[in-house]
Amino acid sequence: MKRVGVWLIGARGSIAGVTLAGHAALLNGAAPTGLVTARADFEGVDLIDLEALVFGGHEITDGDLVEATRGYLSAHQLSHLMPEVEARLHAVEARIRPGIVRGGGARIEALARRAQVAATDRQAVDLIRADLDAFKAAEGLERLIMVNLASTEPPPPPQAAWETPQALYAALGGAALPPSSLYALAAFEGGDAYINFTPSLGSRIPALEAIAEAHGAVHMGSDGKTGETLVKSILAELFTRRNLTVSSWFGQNILGNGDGQVLSDPANKASKIQTKDQLLPKILGYHPQTHVGIDYVGSLGEWKVAWDHIHFQGFMGAPMTMEFTWRGLDSVLAAPLVLDLIRLASLAQERGEVGVLTALAPFFKDPHGCDEQRLISQDEALLAWVKAGALG
Amino acid sequence: MKRVGVWLIGARGSIAGVTLAGHAALLNGAAPTGLVTARADFEGVDLIDLEALVFGGHEITDGDLVEATRGYLSAHQLSHLMPEVEARLHAVEARIRPGIVRGGGARIEALARRAQVAATDRQAVDLIRADLDAFKAAEGLERLIMVNLASTEPPPPPQAAWETPQALYAALGGAALPPSSLYALAAFEGGDAYINFTPSLGSRIPALEAIAEAHGAVHMGSDGKTGETLVKSILAELFTRRNLTVSSWFGQNILGNGDGQVLSDPANKASKIQTKDQLLPKILGYHPQTHVGIDYVGSLGEWKVAWDHIHFQGFMGAPMTMEFTWRGLDSVLAAPLVLDLIRLASLAQERGEVGVLTALAPFFKDPHGCDEQRLISQDEALLAWVKAGALG
Amino acid sequence: MKRVGVWLIGARGSIAGVTLAGHAALLNGAAPTGLVTARADFEGVDLIDLEALVFGGHEITDGDLVEATRGYLSAHQLSHLMPEVEARLHAVEARIRPGIVRGGGARIEALARRAQVAATDRQAVDLIRADLDAFKAAEGLERLIMVNLASTEPPPPPQAAWETPQALYAALGGAALPPSSLYALAAFEGGDAYINFTPSLGSRIPALEAIAEAHGAVHMGSDGKTGETLVKSILAELFTRRNLTVSSWFGQNILGNGDGQVLSDPANKASKIQTKDQLLPKILGYHPQTHVGIDYVGSLGEWKVAWDHIHFQGFMGAPMTMEFTWRGLDSVLAAPLVLDLIRLASLAQERGEVGVLTALAPFFKDPHGCDEQRLISQDEALLAWVKAGALG
Amino acid sequence: MKRVGVWLIGARGSIAGVTLAGHAALLNGAAPTGLVTARADFEGVDLIDLEALVFGGHEITDGDLVEATRGYLSAHQLSHLMPEVEARLHAVEARIRPGIVRGGGARIEALARRAQVAATDRQAVDLIRADLDAFKAAEGLERLIMVNLASTEPPPPPQAAWETPQALYAALGGAALPPSSLYALAAFEGGDAYINFTPSLGSRIPALEAIAEAHGAVHMGSDGKTGETLVKSILAELFTRRNLTVSSWFGQNILGNGDGQVLSDPANKASKIQTKDQLLPKILGYHPQTHVGIDYVGSLGEWKVAWDHIHFQGFMGAPMTMEFTWRGLDSVLAAPLVLDLIRLASLAQERGEVGVLTALAPFFKDPHGCDEQRLISQDEALLAWVKAGALG
Repeated sequence: MKRVGVWLIGARGSIAGVTLAGHAALLNGAAPTGLVTARADFEGVDLIDLEALVFGGHEITDGDLVEATRGYLSAHQLSHLMPEVEARLHAVEARIRPGIVRGGGARIEALARRAQVAATDRQAVDLIRADLDAFKAAEGLERLIMVNLASTEPPPPPQAAWETPQALYAALGGAALPPSSLYALAAFEGGDAYINFTPSLGSRIPALEAIAEAHGAVHMGSDGKTGETLVKSILAELFTRRNLTVSSWFGQNILGNGDGQVLSDPANKASKIQTKDQLLPKILGYHPQTHVGIDYVGSLGEWKVAWDHIHFQGFMGAPMTMEFTWRGLDSVLAAPLVLDLIRLASLAQERGEVGVLTALAPFFKDPHGCDEQRLISQDEALLAWVKAGALG
Repeated sequence: MKRVGVWLIGARGSIAGVTLAGHAALLNGAAPTGLVTARADFEGVDLIDLEALVFGGHEITDGDLVEATRGYLSAHQLSHLMPEVEARLHAVEARIRPGIVRGGGARIEALARRAQVAATDRQAVDLIRADLDAFKAAEGLERLIMVNLASTEPPPPPQAAWETPQALYAALGGAALPPSSLYALAAFEGGDAYINFTPSLGSRIPALEAIAEAHGAVHMGSDGKTGETLVKSILAELFTRRNLTVSSWFGQNILGNGDGQVLSDPANKASKIQTKDQLLPKILGYHPQTHVGIDYVGSLGEWKVAWDHIHFQGFMGAPMTMEFTWRGLDSVLAAPLVLDLIRLASLAQERGEVGVLTALAPFFKDPHGCDEQRLISQDEALLAWVKAGALG
Repeated sequence: MKRVGVWLIGARGSIAGVTLAGHAALLNGAAPTGLVTARADFEGVDLIDLEALVFGGHEITDGDLVEATRGYLSAHQLSHLMPEVEARLHAVEARIRPGIVRGGGARIEALARRAQVAATDRQAVDLIRADLDAFKAAEGLERLIMVNLASTEPPPPPQAAWETPQALYAALGGAALPPSSLYALAAFEGGDAYINFTPSLGSRIPALEAIAEAHGAVHMGSDGKTGETLVKSILAELFTRRNLTVSSWFGQNILGNGDGQVLSDPANKASKIQTKDQLLPKILGYHPQTHVGIDYVGSLGEWKVAWDHIHFQGFMGAPMTMEFTWRGLDSVLAAPLVLDLIRLASLAQERGEVGVLTALAPFFKDPHGCDEQRLISQDEALLAWVKAGALG
Repeated sequence: MKRVGVWLIGARGSIAGVTLAGHAALLNGAAPTGLVTARADFEGVDLIDLEALVFGGHEITDGDLVEATRGYLSAHQLSHLMPEVEARLHAVEARIRPGIVRGGGARIEALARRAQVAATDRQAVDLIRADLDAFKAAEGLERLIMVNLASTEPPPPPQAAWETPQALYAALGGAALPPSSLYALAAFEGGDAYINFTPSLGSRIPALEAIAEAHGAVHMGSDGKTGETLVKSILAELFTRRNLTVSSWFGQNILGNGDGQVLSDPANKASKIQTKDQLLPKILGYHPQTHVGIDYVGSLGEWKVAWDHIHFQGFMGAPMTMEFTWRGLDSVLAAPLVLDLIRLASLAQERGEVGVLTALAPFFKDPHGCDEQRLISQDEALLAWVKAGALG
């Protein structure tokens, strides 16, 4: 069996831990609840065997993947899984390399305990690339898929150097890119795939898009769609299909994990709100008053609670309301999607596709290269892509 | 311009009143919020002009359509519409005929103030038909669409006579049918359309289906999808598209209008819960524990409040929850759909269609002849039907 | 140190398990969160030392207290407590005696696996009393407090024999009393205290009240106030203090534990709803439309979720609403109150009090001998009682 | 009958309009729902007759009290009251004088259409005082109660001049005080009462407290307690009385009226959040993580919706949650309290009291001179004050 590498940026974070624990549990026969690619719709598609995936990653915090995951599973009544997944987690922990810290914002830099220091962007990319190549060589991997699961960066101010590969390469002697983009560049330079599960910039600039094409790499993002935005992306169609007018849609998220702490820095929060707040106008076709609040409430731990208040008008302008409260475990919702994205990116690699994988839009709050924000339309397009390729 | 008749069963009820007020307001230039057929998707479809519709109906309560509608509009901050709609409401009130009371349950019979007495089902059908024919003659109507907006009947025990037209006609000398079915039969015998916006039996027996075909009539039902079930029919796909397992879905409706009072009789409530409770298993493909409660809370007046608690499992079986509260004005949500159904039934008549109009499924909780319960799939099928016909 | 016995009816149920685990955890130094008697208000009151309590009980199901409690703690992220409490739980399990099954309703009888069979009520009381005396002798206990934590019984039809001790004793040759009352009688005949944490009849008939007095026993009930009713008992004062009129108060409880299964039998549910539904009129001073629904939703396990919708009128009759959702672990909320009741009943015994302990009203949904339903007034009265005795 | 003047600052705002409409409706026999002083507890207290109150006020916006109130009543289904109240509203509108604009923040100054210009604080106070004296003379009023209902000002930076009357008077040649304090000073200089229903500074500085004493004036504030904070002030006791630990209490308010627009300016919002956020620690006795959000959602109009998420720990630290949604009409909730405050301030004047009326604490989010934040304890203290005075 060919072996495919998966390189996680943020490899000791809770999404990484749950992804790895879930991967191990699935190999031990657990039900694939939450895996989109395990739906009956995907039967007959030649998806990569989960057994073929080999995980490694970068991480800037210290701590230990095994202990962190044990804590997470125990806090959510999943302790019974630990014995079966422990050995695999140890293997991944041994492959984790210190991450690169350059420009992630004060909040993220404060978290850094183990990092590789680079004097220039070029040097940072080379350090990352060296780790990826060493991983591929050590494990005998055919190809690699990098997944960005790191904390959200502040949105950097646009630079002229982002427009073309030439300009970007010329600027790499200084500080032109945030970490998420340095990682993407490193992946592309080896022809590897890059999946951005965060709202950070990643590969989303013309220069990197062109570089990905040039190296035959696939990529996609941004920001995994796991909670409040997921609900919106389906519920908003209730109003469009019934021709009801949304007057205002007020959403408030509260969360207590590390992600929440990073987001309590207004600079980092800005990226997140930006990706969460553009969906409604795209689905509705007009701009009602919207609000997306995100606040850190420490006692919630890994729970993410969202309250949305929707004010809408019916026949003859009569005002009515709908409210919902969503109580989700963000990492538990994200982890199976990470496995889905790995399998689908691998499928694209096998099919020889290159560039932005817009068909993966249903997994993202702000899908790269895709204006369609309706979950069901996105999902139908994904199925069509999966099956079209299957026929070819 | 050809004129088309619309005959409302329950012509002084709140849905009828809001439908008529809204119809008049639209003719005066109001925005068509809530009208599905006013969506851009329906542009270019040759739908009947709202001006061409002439309304009449049956009603068993006394009271006055104009006064009842004035009260409704005033209670919901729509008083400003009254001056423009009053003249049209008076014209409809003048065309209302006493309804037929036979077998609607104790609760409905207690409401009856003005009714036509029939010794047999046959006689009841003839009385109804005579009213319809008189209406068509008096108004010079080309054809007629009957819409059942009356209170919910208790579900009658199935009868052998329902199986074939022959058996049904043989049984009409006695009491074989509930009122909703007597009305449907009367419509069909004149080749007229029958739309059942309630969960009552209506045309939903083989004998009436065959009689509709024989007379070239179209028909559809049952139970307008306006609130909690509407939300379910779209929200349930969040779970299927993400492969999340619904463990339980508990729904509780409270409402305060006349419909609510009739539903406080367990016999009548049974019909309603039946049509509301079959949707989830059809969409999900399995049977989680479900509950649909409906209770009368007088102080709510025309408001219908639904609280749904959804318990679901994610990756590795982790339990999570979603709750929603829906606060809708049932009649305001229903009325534009009634106008949509009239326009679409009229379109089917013009195209020469016959039998059950399954394409109208998105409007109903329990669509006749249609297993698809997903709102968006139903809506896409409706659009395809509308456009297919347009091409022919 | 004097040792005091505590005899739990329903000794392997989840309230008993959490009470015992919590008692052990407190002895190991856990924080007394949820214990009313641990508030600063009770400082200086000579309450019994928790170390002095010795637990035993009756139970009709089989299973094992240690295993059941291990399961409960593990399901609610309290596994870390198990090592410290296990030894004490084993000791209690060894003292559990088979319960008496007589008249608890079909639902409860179906649960019975280990029961003592009695031909008459007299014989049942004697069997219970023998177990209590054996417990006191074996453990060298000065006195005993019985606490009823068993499943809710259906409300029995009133009997003439309940009016006086004479009539009751005369009827004991047959079947005059439900199990909860047989247990109360057995306690009283030994001068022991009886606390009824359930809505079952218990000691709440004139004959048993007189017998308690005659034997110098104290007693109190009914139905521990732990969730939705607790909220009501405080929130209702918002409306009275502001002179706002409650138009309707609709409450719906869903729960998934054994208690919920027993309550899914309408006969047993009747008792519960009766005690939950009388509070509002007593606090408000008028009767708005109220509703208390209780339904079993298996997937919730030990969680009890309540949704309440309150419709109220303000100045000039303007309607407004408040809604709340309560998500509680019933046994976790009940257990510390059980310990409170034991300590306070013990205090009453030490002070030589006799009869109904109305000062314990804040702990009960339907306090015996007390019309005051406002939580804060009840709590102030409790403090006054505690302190008055302290002075005497 | 002696006549007492009431002078409203913000006399065309919605609270003023509803207060005046309600006052007129009460005189016409409407039920006194929402009036605390209409509770049975206040029977026998010699409160001023509502008929004796004569209203006037200052206002900086243009518009018309009659039209604004007509709009408000019509938007909330209270149109039927208009005919009975119109004449009285016209009389008040005729007595409204242009307000003073000095230092209320950019947001408030932008609203100003009709204002009196003052070069110094001293001159502003004199202009206000002249209006008050003219009102008293014109209407033959024995005494006057000023009520501040104006938009919330930004919290001004503390000044040394606030400490003593001497320092304050010395500074009046410049700009030492925000408008709310200028109004208070003007009231005090005539011996009149000042009630601050807003979170603005008002009389809450040592210099003004001393000046009030010196002139024999009574005063009280701040910030009427009408919605989310009202609920907190009673619900928090659920947790203290049961010894449950609140881990976090997250509250989010959304509102759509003019008050909301002013609060959308962060400077003005700061005052509001300050008064709303100090209650919980005072009641609980510790500082859980708290959050009070206020955001403007235009489509809500006069509705104020609050969502609170309370995370608490029970026995053995088990986490549980409660959520509530409050949907109130702020002005409808505030208006009867304004009448209550007028009656109670008048009572204090009649009894010859002087200084801060701490007994009026239950009406305020941040009661001047009172650390007690529990609604019921505050209410009991109010009753004691009312009755104690009655005996004297």
